[in-house]
Amino acid sequence: MSCFQVRTDLALEAREGIGEAEREIHGVSVEESYDKKNEIRVTRVVIETKNGAKAMGKPMGVYITLEAPGMIEPEEDYHQEISSALAGQLKSIIPDAEKEQSILVVGLGNRDVTADALGPNVADNLFVTRHVVKEYGKAAYNKSRMHMVSSIVPGVMAKTGMESAEIIRGVVEQTRPDLVIVVDALAARSTKRLNRTIQITNTGIHPGSGVGNHRNALTKESLEVPVIAIGVPTVVDAATIVNDATSGRMPANLTELNNMYVTSKDVDYQVKQISHIICDALNEALEL
Amino acid sequence: MSCFQVRTDLALEAREGIGEAEREIHGVSVEESYDKKNEIRVTRVVIETKNGAKAMGKPMGVYITLEAPGMIEPEEDYHQEISSALAGQLKSIIPDAEKEQSILVVGLGNRDVTADALGPNVADNLFVTRHVVKEYGKAAYNKSRMHMVSSIVPGVMAKTGMESAEIIRGVVEQTRPDLVIVVDALAARSTKRLNRTIQITNTGIHPGSGVGNHRNALTKESLEVPVIAIGVPTVVDAATIVNDATSGRMPANLTELNNMYVTSKDVDYQVKQISHIICDALNEALEL
Amino acid sequence: MSCFQVRTDLALEAREGIGEAEREIHGVSVEESYDKKNEIRVTRVVIETKNGAKAMGKPMGVYITLEAPGMIEPEEDYHQEISSALAGQLKSIIPDAEKEQSILVVGLGNRDVTADALGPNVADNLFVTRHVVKEYGKAAYNKSRMHMVSSIVPGVMAKTGMESAEIIRGVVEQTRPDLVIVVDALAARSTKRLNRTIQITNTGIHPGSGVGNHRNALTKESLEVPVIAIGVPTVVDAATIVNDATSGRMPANLTELNNMYVTSKDVDYQVKQISHIICDALNEALEL
Amino acid sequence: MSCFQVRTDLALEAREGIGEAEREIHGVSVEESYDKKNEIRVTRVVIETKNGAKAMGKPMGVYITLEAPGMIEPEEDYHQEISSALAGQLKSIIPDAEKEQSILVVGLGNRDVTADALGPNVADNLFVTRHVVKEYGKAAYNKSRMHMVSSIVPGVMAKTGMESAEIIRGVVEQTRPDLVIVVDALAARSTKRLNRTIQITNTGIHPGSGVGNHRNALTKESLEVPVIAIGVPTVVDAATIVNDATSGRMPANLTELNNMYVTSKDVDYQVKQISHIICDALNEALEL
Repeated sequence: MSCFQVRTDLALEAREGIGEAEREIHGVSVEESYDKKNEIRVTRVVIETKNGAKAMGKPMGVYITLEAPGMIEPEEDYHQEISSALAGQLKSIIPDAEKEQSILVVGLGNRDVTADALGPNVADNLFVTRHVVKEYGKAAYNKSRMHMVSSIVPGVMAKTGMESAEIIRGVVEQTRPDLVIVVDALAARSTKRLNRTIQITNTGIHPGSGVGNHRNALTKESLEVPVIAIGVPTVVDAATIVNDATSGRMPANLTELNNMYVTSKDVDYQVKQISHIICDALNEALEL
Repeated sequence: MSCFQVRTDLALEAREGIGEAEREIHGVSVEESYDKKNEIRVTRVVIETKNGAKAMGKPMGVYITLEAPGMIEPEEDYHQEISSALAGQLKSIIPDAEKEQSILVVGLGNRDVTADALGPNVADNLFVTRHVVKEYGKAAYNKSRMHMVSSIVPGVMAKTGMESAEIIRGVVEQTRPDLVIVVDALAARSTKRLNRTIQITNTGIHPGSGVGNHRNALTKESLEVPVIAIGVPTVVDAATIVNDATSGRMPANLTELNNMYVTSKDVDYQVKQISHIICDALNEALEL
Repeated sequence: MSCFQVRTDLALEAREGIGEAEREIHGVSVEESYDKKNEIRVTRVVIETKNGAKAMGKPMGVYITLEAPGMIEPEEDYHQEISSALAGQLKSIIPDAEKEQSILVVGLGNRDVTADALGPNVADNLFVTRHVVKEYGKAAYNKSRMHMVSSIVPGVMAKTGMESAEIIRGVVEQTRPDLVIVVDALAARSTKRLNRTIQITNTGIHPGSGVGNHRNALTKESLEVPVIAIGVPTVVDAATIVNDATSGRMPANLTELNNMYVTSKDVDYQVKQISHIICDALNEALEL
Repeated sequence: MSCFQVRTDLALEAREGIGEAEREIHGVSVEESYDKKNEIRVTRVVIETKNGAKAMGKPMGVYITLEAPGMIEPEEDYHQEISSALAGQLKSIIPDAEKEQSILVVGLGNRDVTADALGPNVADNLFVTRHVVKEYGKAAYNKSRMHMVSSIVPGVMAKTGMESAEIIRGVVEQTRPDLVIVVDALAARSTKRLNRTIQITNTGIHPGSGVGNHRNALTKESLEVPVIAIGVPTVVDAATIVNDATSGRMPANLTELNNMYVTSKDVDYQVKQISHIICDALNEALEL
């Protein structure tokens, strides 16, 4: 048995870590759908009981995974298909999606590290409306009903000296949104999921997840508003890969790998593409 | 008389706007010192009474201006002289500078607009310590006494949908610093002050100041902790220049200038240099 | 009469500088068309004779101007209309547009100055194909006919120590493209054209034009291949504005304005929008 | 025996790959010096014969390696010690270092990928003088003797459609420098060398080296001027690490690792620090 903690931020992978026989976990329901034309696979895992949560090693809640092998291909029309599919899933998980509300989008991660810049990229390009609606009313957009959207990039602890969670809690207390949506780059267990899987969950962000290893939770409990998290695996922990390749017998001299990650050589292009997809999906989902 | 409001963020210029005869304003004291070798001029204006505040059009408080013509020359040794002089002035204005305290540095402005990126540049490069001291104690730095420094770049309203002041108030409430230091790019009235003048004040930031025109105040009253503001004029309002050149008879068809500013062609280089100077000065001033 | 040289990079404005009576210039033909639905106005000025060139102060050639007031509005569908209109105009001016050829796109300007980053933004996001076609053939794209597209951002002289023209000449000699397309931010004479006008010309870039004031020409004569220039006014010379406002009597103490420019406060957003439009138009126009 | 090609860009590591017994390679001389106070180790490997080149798997020439464990610590004074040591080594390897000459510094790599941005960072911040000296003479700097320094960031093939080597050859032919200095991020074999080792060589850049895997050579043969390369390992090939950990038995399902690399989690900070060190060293070494 390995004393090395295998790490994954993906519910899909958590389930794969479980043996074939145990796949039918009590308290966990799984639904799959496949859009053949666009090669988009959507898996909806619902962890309904505490037992299910224990078996999966994830909190109770809904985990939607959207997989599309062509996510990083340079085809704009195809991106729009993925964006629309993602927007649909987002709407399905936003509480009272049809009710006018105030929504804060948080772009977690470090904008100076390419693989970790997904959240900041999305937040930077989002269509925000809160300040205009507050100042001029919905009429400024010729709308009778609309959400008020705001966004923030809190930065990472090494640069701010603060937990992201401290900053976000402060902003939430000041601006009182009805919903927080957090976008973050994740660590996957397997390189084959990198940059072609998007995960949405209504359980928020839990300690130890994300490329930057945010230590404090961003959840309904900690923020006192519902929290939806959108994550994309952009890296694999270096230690995880070696651990897997050596069947858990990672050489002692490689422990420094714990502070390293594996990423694709064209990570800049891939993160840019996926940021666009998520940004477009949010703009679509957050329009009434 | 012009109905166009001439705008300046510099106390020094506010005083210049006043006629020669009235220069000796009651309730305003002015001290100048000049470092001949380094060509650094320091002017310390103290507005001591409400009358003085009214005459100057600025709140009561201390305004220190450091002028150095060579601020943007590419000479690193000289930059260190300016940094040290600035650090000295900062220490003179920080309340209980010798007492261990927690200090939040705020980089105001838009990192995507070169002339407005001064604050973000400084905050991004600052030496922050709060997270390390909180986790491992001062021993991590081999120190027995030290400040805890944190920093944030709140972003601009057009991108976040929130006032900078809302974000900062939230962060201050969560992390309870003893002092806030705000760094911002300013608008000057005259092109001759651009990028060679640094202003420090203990009155904070007031509505309508700054390149990005932050509308809410960042002051001791609004944040409930002392606020020091460091500002550098990097732009001149386009309307101000035309207004001056036409002796207040700005042609009606130029009103769109109100949404424009004038900046130097090598603004990127100049803002980079001054960001370094201020960042070094803060690192020096915030070390016990 | 003013001794101050009024500067404009726009053929449209050059014509406006000429008195009403002389508008019918011999050797200059002008055609206008207006797409009412999309509010896109296209003006095609052809300078056919040396006399016309002298009268206009511009070299002989075709100058197409596309004006759309909504260019900087955040509406993606509308952007696609402008992109397509621009792509059509580009195709009309590319020599032998239907013949397979090798095309080098040059992004002039300084990526660190927001108003001057238009060219680099476009080049960074362009779909380049030359390296793939050279290595794997057109089959890699499932095409039987296609252009080979390459791109370069030469940087500005203050950072490279070289004229952009020196770098581009070197790249052209090494890679022998059939056509060079140069994208650059321009200086306009009037703030009303800022960020809503795109100019295309088959005369290339001439000394003294552009935000960064490139001193060497990029023309068919200097590069020995046809050169198309795409330009968007993103700044106005500060001196030009004051000169106009004072009817040519610019105060002597404002001569330092010669090294300054006027730009819009949300220049970052506007340049980003227009970069996308031009990039999309180029991708469309350069597809066979 | 492994059929997987272990890759390293470091001469020091090439030598480590050779068994203890064979360390005394004929035709290869090795000198070490150690600055105890600053903990800087300098190793000078000279490959003097074709046999030596074969044994080392590297071309004949001088390879200087400077190792300093504290290279990435946030201590500016210490950085100056490393910079000065590096400047001294650079001067020892520049042909006719005391003769006035024209020097082109090339920043290889992709500025949008943090680990690969070392070269662009150095080039962007270098003190370039060629354009000023050409226009105004050395008097502009109050000097009677000085080099003319220029710099370029060619970009990467995925974005330009051209080999870096094509661009550089073109620039060299146009501007005729006496010396080319190339700065590039390298791949190391071992994580323990990451971001604390700087290698200088007078053999230039050879196919297949660097993070971005530049395929064409940049050597005296290809450019017809001497080429010095400065490299810092910022990544380890993911496949190399797994190959080592599994003693050459990399699982077949990990072949996709060939397109991945391993990097440190605070790669942004480390690359920034080292870019400063190299930039300062170049500025010092290129001053007469």
